[in-house]
Amino acid sequence: MDARTIEIKQDILSENARDGEALRFRLAERGVKMINLMASPGAGKTTTILATIKRLRDELGFAVVEGDIESQVDSKKVKDAGVPAVQINTGGACHLDIPMVEPALGLLDLDELDVVFVENIGNLVCPAEFDIGEALKVMILSVPEGDDKILKYPLMFSMCDVLIVNKCDFLELSTCDFNMDALLANMSRLNPKAKVFQISSLTGVGLDDWCDYLLGFARS
Amino acid sequence: MDARTIEIKQDILSENARDGEALRFRLAERGVKMINLMASPGAGKTTTILATIKRLRDELGFAVVEGDIESQVDSKKVKDAGVPAVQINTGGACHLDIPMVEPALGLLDLDELDVVFVENIGNLVCPAEFDIGEALKVMILSVPEGDDKILKYPLMFSMCDVLIVNKCDFLELSTCDFNMDALLANMSRLNPKAKVFQISSLTGVGLDDWCDYLLGFARS
Repeated sequence: MDARTIEIKQDILSENARDGEALRFRLAERGVKMINLMASPGAGKTTTILATIKRLRDELGFAVVEGDIESQVDSKKVKDAGVPAVQINTGGACHLDIPMVEPALGLLDLDELDVVFVENIGNLVCPAEFDIGEALKVMILSVPEGDDKILKYPLMFSMCDVLIVNKCDFLELSTCDFNMDALLANMSRLNPKAKVFQISSLTGVGLDDWCDYLLGFARS
Repeated sequence: MDARTIEIKQDILSENARDGEALRFRLAERGVKMINLMASPGAGKTTTILATIKRLRDELGFAVVEGDIESQVDSKKVKDAGVPAVQINTGGACHLDIPMVEPALGLLDLDELDVVFVENIGNLVCPAEFDIGEALKVMILSVPEGDDKILKYPLMFSMCDVLIVNKCDFLELSTCDFNMDALLANMSRLNPKAKVFQISSLTGVGLDDWCDYLLGFARS
């Protein structure tokens, strides 16, 4: 990167951070917690959102903003479950930012909501750099991706508030060489404050702890 | 994106495409086929490269250029297998481009080589936009990511020459809901010319067909 590239990038990121602070404040005034959910493609973001909402929908008002390059696949799944959803199609952009998220929030009835999940583009790199005004940054790592992802994509792991290790049902498979101890040791060095939950959003294992935490956070 | 953003992006991409053409020509003159290997984080790029080289190293000369945001994890694995490797650390950038790849190639003895695998950053979005001078674009989708990724990240699927569906051993798992027929049908609509291989680089299933194809391509 040349000096001009760096300068433009810093301008964009600092403007974005200011806008993030302002949006976070407005959502807090409305009593809404926005959760920025980030992960690789196929780590189980939508499945985890739906399993979480199914368990907590009597306690909290939920909506979902779905970010994808193309398609309505995920927002359809959410609407089919009877949950308000807005689809953002970035048409190529590899992360969500506030100019995309804010209009989507405008389509939701915030007075009815406690928690808005924003499912970011499936990407372990670029979304980590953008504040979208969220109250909580949650990342999912799925077991089949391997325990070494924390070494290769450290930014996302270092700035998340919560790490959900999903697809723990895959640990049963004899060909699975995921080393949970190595992941947890690296995580506690890199980001000791982050909460870590081990779940399978498909089988339900570990969801109780994550949902208890989320309920406490939403009511805080 | 405003008009200025689009203009800058087009300038960068067209300059990159010209450089890609020139590099491709120089590598062809040296008898080297460069393969741009792209996938999500944890789809099995390094494992597939190593399993492929193990089968074909008596027939072809191989080297690997490893692209990662940080860490030497992958190039160490390749060197441990006795294969020449060069690590590129992008320090944050979400894709490889020619100014990164060309100096890395300069560290290899091209006269000894038939095939150079370039393992791109784990990302289904950004690497698809950049020509790095490769002779072949290969993408890996792993079964645990789900069959719907083709709907959400269509650019990568539409421009690859080869799609490798990896981790087919996960299809055995009762909780696995991957629909291979749906993937193949969508792929044949989106990119009918692409070759598709179903493999498990860990168990070796399907590697024979992929290696036969690669051997033919390297000698063409």
